[in-house]
Amino acid sequence: MAKTVVALLQHAAPPTEPRTSVLARVERMAREAHARGARILCTQELFCGPYFCQVEDAARMDLAEPVPGPTTEFLGRLARELQVEIVGSLYERRAPGLYHNTAVFMDAQGGLAGRYRKMHIPDDPRYYEKFYFTPGDLGWQAVAGRDAKVGMLVCWDQWYPEAARLTALQGAEILFYPTAIGWWHGETPADRRQQREAWQLMHRAHAIANGIWVAAVNRVGREDDLEFWGGSMLIDPGGQVVCEGSQDREEVLVAEVDPGRIEELRRGWPFLRDRRIDAYGGLMDRYGDLR
Amino acid sequence: MAKTVVALLQHAAPPTEPRTSVLARVERMAREAHARGARILCTQELFCGPYFCQVEDAARMDLAEPVPGPTTEFLGRLARELQVEIVGSLYERRAPGLYHNTAVFMDAQGGLAGRYRKMHIPDDPRYYEKFYFTPGDLGWQAVAGRDAKVGMLVCWDQWYPEAARLTALQGAEILFYPTAIGWWHGETPADRRQQREAWQLMHRAHAIANGIWVAAVNRVGREDDLEFWGGSMLIDPGGQVVCEGSQDREEVLVAEVDPGRIEELRRGWPFLRDRRIDAYGGLMDRYGDLR
Repeated sequence: MAKTVVALLQHAAPPTEPRTSVLARVERMAREAHARGARILCTQELFCGPYFCQVEDAARMDLAEPVPGPTTEFLGRLARELQVEIVGSLYERRAPGLYHNTAVFMDAQGGLAGRYRKMHIPDDPRYYEKFYFTPGDLGWQAVAGRDAKVGMLVCWDQWYPEAARLTALQGAEILFYPTAIGWWHGETPADRRQQREAWQLMHRAHAIANGIWVAAVNRVGREDDLEFWGGSMLIDPGGQVVCEGSQDREEVLVAEVDPGRIEELRRGWPFLRDRRIDAYGGLMDRYGDLR
Repeated sequence: MAKTVVALLQHAAPPTEPRTSVLARVERMAREAHARGARILCTQELFCGPYFCQVEDAARMDLAEPVPGPTTEFLGRLARELQVEIVGSLYERRAPGLYHNTAVFMDAQGGLAGRYRKMHIPDDPRYYEKFYFTPGDLGWQAVAGRDAKVGMLVCWDQWYPEAARLTALQGAEILFYPTAIGWWHGETPADRRQQREAWQLMHRAHAIANGIWVAAVNRVGREDDLEFWGGSMLIDPGGQVVCEGSQDREEVLVAEVDPGRIEELRRGWPFLRDRRIDAYGGLMDRYGDLR
């Protein structure tokens, strides 16, 4: 595959800001990314507005929208005009009372070429996602783009080696993780450091274990009780951080991705060769006490 | 479970040194570990001698020994005398022409209480392990010790999130990885840094993803074309390195392990709760092109 250039759009979305204003800013960032040579853009998780899962309020399910719908139209128009591919994250309305946390892949003609519904759904204080999002049922997605095969996963998925592996086995060369992760004001500096370090480290481990490129795009800024920590990053198949966003500023990160590095790394460390697929059945158990 | 203390025995085993001399040193290290309060000791991979897999030579299969056999007798005697548990690594002779890279768990009465046969077998220049070792067929092992449930994996397994997960699902509270990993003299400083960093990082990721303690015990010193990089380490369930050995000196690392931290971490980040066991079937495929 050819070398390509990816862009990670890291921004704020304050609870008081109207959707039109956020989209206008994202559009400016997309234009900047394009001007800097990017060919594949990725948004943060639920980029159109604030992270609305901090309270359980059924009225907020009104934020869900059909796919295709307003957000894929917005992204599709941008993709077509700029001739870029876009991984976008949105709140999908599938049926009354049935909503998903969904990533879409828009091709450079503006068409909806791929869809992934978040498989692992968290539920922690201030991240009441099990209330809003039905677990995905589309499985693991890698979409053949112009320059690379693009895997899509979302936020909480990033803690699961299973998700990265399964998407890599679909042929993904770059894994994109639109993300919304932050600190709560009650956490100690030591806790904050540990959390952010663990978060970065898991992405690097996915890159190494699978010999693939990994990108995470996280939001920044204070929203009610959460302070999103930014730090969007691109990681090479050897686990090295190629570029990393700030913790508190909006930023368009642009970097080159060479899919050729994948085979180079995998020849050096041929982990896929030696997997014990005859002995992995227990991975489909909740816990080992059933066998 | 009660708090416990583990010891990691990191040493050299020069190709010219007789087995008796290596064992005498390991015995001294075990006594030191015991004197410093250790209750669970772990050896490096194939600790009784040099890493013999740098060339393919069928005569070296003579190094394999039965289990129980001389090495488990040596470890059992030490365990009984010092009232410690020991994870040991050795070359197991199972039948003529059938050999394994095996980890054993000796209980504090000196009995052979657990056995794991390395599941993932590497084969790279200077690590011709597929020639010497039949892939294991005992599956994933967690042994109930006095203070903690002990998981055993060996070296190349450390690159496989599947192995850590499966052993954690067996209830392991501490994962021990006897290891033999090093640099080849032809590698650049940048390659060396990347390799060692990736190696440490994978262990930390296993700790985080599973919310368990992880320990790796690696050898040091030059043996023919390889320079083993030491760096034995204990990692807590949050992914923090609790202690780390030097790159070039023999060392007994002793540190406290609190199994109570496991539940604390897993309540904060309840990854086991949200695994998509209905959607992991593809992990048993070699690659996704078969579906």
